[in-house]
Amino acid sequence: MLQDYFNDVVDQVNKTIEKYLSSAPSGTTSLYDASRHLFSSGGKRLRPLILVSSCDYLGGDHSRAVLAGSAIETLHTFTLIHDDIMDHDSLRRGIPTVHVKWGEPMAILAGDLLHAKAFEMLNDSLKGVDEKLHYEVMKTFVNSIIVVSEGQAMDMEFESKNDVTEEDYLEMVKKKTAYLIAASSKIGSLIGGADPEVVEKFFRFGINLGIAFQIVDDIIGITSDEAELGKPLFSDIREGKRTLLIIKTLKEAQPKEVKLLKEVLGNRNASAEQLREVSEIIKKYSLEYAYSLAEEYKSRALSSLEGIQPSNQEASEVLKFISEFTLKRKK
Amino acid sequence: MLQDYFNDVVDQVNKTIEKYLSSAPSGTTSLYDASRHLFSSGGKRLRPLILVSSCDYLGGDHSRAVLAGSAIETLHTFTLIHDDIMDHDSLRRGIPTVHVKWGEPMAILAGDLLHAKAFEMLNDSLKGVDEKLHYEVMKTFVNSIIVVSEGQAMDMEFESKNDVTEEDYLEMVKKKTAYLIAASSKIGSLIGGADPEVVEKFFRFGINLGIAFQIVDDIIGITSDEAELGKPLFSDIREGKRTLLIIKTLKEAQPKEVKLLKEVLGNRNASAEQLREVSEIIKKYSLEYAYSLAEEYKSRALSSLEGIQPSNQEASEVLKFISEFTLKRKK
Repeated sequence: MLQDYFNDVVDQVNKTIEKYLSSAPSGTTSLYDASRHLFSSGGKRLRPLILVSSCDYLGGDHSRAVLAGSAIETLHTFTLIHDDIMDHDSLRRGIPTVHVKWGEPMAILAGDLLHAKAFEMLNDSLKGVDEKLHYEVMKTFVNSIIVVSEGQAMDMEFESKNDVTEEDYLEMVKKKTAYLIAASSKIGSLIGGADPEVVEKFFRFGINLGIAFQIVDDIIGITSDEAELGKPLFSDIREGKRTLLIIKTLKEAQPKEVKLLKEVLGNRNASAEQLREVSEIIKKYSLEYAYSLAEEYKSRALSSLEGIQPSNQEASEVLKFISEFTLKRKK
Repeated sequence: MLQDYFNDVVDQVNKTIEKYLSSAPSGTTSLYDASRHLFSSGGKRLRPLILVSSCDYLGGDHSRAVLAGSAIETLHTFTLIHDDIMDHDSLRRGIPTVHVKWGEPMAILAGDLLHAKAFEMLNDSLKGVDEKLHYEVMKTFVNSIIVVSEGQAMDMEFESKNDVTEEDYLEMVKKKTAYLIAASSKIGSLIGGADPEVVEKFFRFGINLGIAFQIVDDIIGITSDEAELGKPLFSDIREGKRTLLIIKTLKEAQPKEVKLLKEVLGNRNASAEQLREVSEIIKKYSLEYAYSLAEEYKSRALSSLEGIQPSNQEASEVLKFISEFTLKRKK
C-alpha cells in the first residue's frame, strides 16, 4: 500500500529529527523549543519522501536515505523560519511563526541551529560511504542552500521591480523552490548508487516538479481559504510578490484592471475588499494559463524518469503519486 | 620571519574567500555585496592562522589547511553578521554593520549564504582525503556551529538573569567563543594527520586559548577607546551582558556601588557619564582578577601542546606568538 510507504517514511523522518533536536543543554531550552516549533505543526515532508523514494527506486540504502531526508527537511525548515522573518509573515501551517512567538533574535538563531543540524544529519547519513560519494552529496546539499539563498534575494528584489518577466520568474522559482526539491531527488539517486547520467535525470525530475510545485503554490495562495491554507490569503498580493499569476495578469489585463492591480500590489494596508476584487481579476487572466504550465512541468518531470528501470516498483509509484498530488493539492 | 608566515596565510585566506564570493548571478548583487562587507574591513584572521599553523606544526597539507581555514573564517563572519542583528550593534571594525547598511532581511540572508559557503569551502578542502577524516572534520565543524549557537542563546538568556555565576560565564564563553577556536586547532591537527591523543591536545589548546581570548575581549570592551575598538565602548554594560568583569564586580563591590551598577546594567538609555562612572567601579574590582585569569588560561593552552614534537618550528612559534598576542592585544 502506497499509504503505508508514506506513513513509514514520514514517521521515520519525524523520529530522526526529534532525536537530533532533543538534547538541549542547560540555558538553551528556548532555542531548542523554537527550533522544534514548525516540525510539530505538520508539513507534508515532501522533500524527504522524494529523497527516500528516489533512493529506493534504485534499490539503495534505505536508512541512509531516511537520515539524508531528515537533513533536507531540517534544512527546508530553517529556510522557512528565516523567510518568515524576512517576509514579515506571522502565520504558517495555522500557527504563529517562530519570530512571532520567540522574537526575531531567537528565530534567527533557531534557523542557524537547524542549518547546522541539517549538516550534522547529512554527514551522519554518509558515515563510511565511499569518499567520492561523501564529497558529491555534500556538494549537492551545499549548492542547494547557496542557490536557494540567491533565489530568496531575487524574490525580495522583484518586490520593488516593475518589469519582471515570466522568464525572470521561472529563473527565480528554479532557485528559490525547485533546486531544493531537485537536490532531494539527486541526493536520493546518489545514495542509490546511480551513475552520472541517471543522477542527472533524477535532478531534472526534481527541477521540473519543483517549478510545477511553486506555480501551484502561487495558485493556492489566491484560490484556497485561510483555514485550509494556515496563513492569510492574498499575502502574495499584499507583499507585492511577482508570482506567475500576477506577471501574466499585468501582461494580459485591460489598462483599467492593470491600474487597479498596481494600486493594490505591495500595499500592506490594502483592504480585504480591494484584495478580493484584484484577486478576481488575477484569476480571470491567469488561472487557466498557470494550471496548464504547471501541468507541463509535471509532465516534463515524469518523462525525465522514463526508461530508468525501478528496482522497487512501490518507490516509483510514490514518485508518480507525488507528482500528480503536486497539482491536485489544496494546501 | 614570523611576520612573513602571517602575511602569507592571511593573504591566501583572503584570496580564497574572495574567489568563493566573487560570482554573483544576476539579481543577487546586493546579497553578495552584503556577504563580502565585513571581510573588507580587516579582522585578525585569528582562526585560520590557528588552523593552518596547527596543521603545519604536524607537517600536514598546507593548501588543504588554507581552504579549511578560509571556511572557518567565513563561518565566523556569518556568526558576526547574525550576532550584530541580535545584539542591535550598529558598528563593527569601524564600519556600519551589515543590517545597518542593507537592512535586516538581507543581513539574515547574507549570513545564511556565508554559512553555506563555509561548508562549500570545507568540503572542497577535504576532497579526496580518507573518508574517515572527511567525516571527522565535518563533524567537528558542525559541532562547533551547534555549540556556538547554544552559547549565543545562553548569552542572550543571561541578559535578563541576575544570578549568573563565574561558572555560568565560563560555560557560556566556552561555547560562544572558545569552541570555534578549538575547532580551528582541532581541524588543523586532523588535517595534519594527528592521532586522537594529539588531536585532543590541540583541542584543549584551542578551548583554553579561546577562554583567555574572550576574557581579554571583555576587558578591551571597557578599557580601550572607540577609535581603536571600531565600535562603541561600554556596549557590554549597556546591553546588560554578564561579562567576567561585571560578575566579579557584582560579587565584590560595596552595596552602594552594586546598586549603581545594577541601575545602569542593561539600560540602553544610560548616559555617557553614568557608563563612565560605572566602568571605573568595574575596573577597580575586576581588572586585575580578569587579567590573571586570562593569563592562567593562556598558560594552560600552551602547556597542552608541550611534548608534541613540531615538524615545522615556525608554525609552533606562530601558535606561541598568537597565544601571547591574545593577552597583549588592544583590539
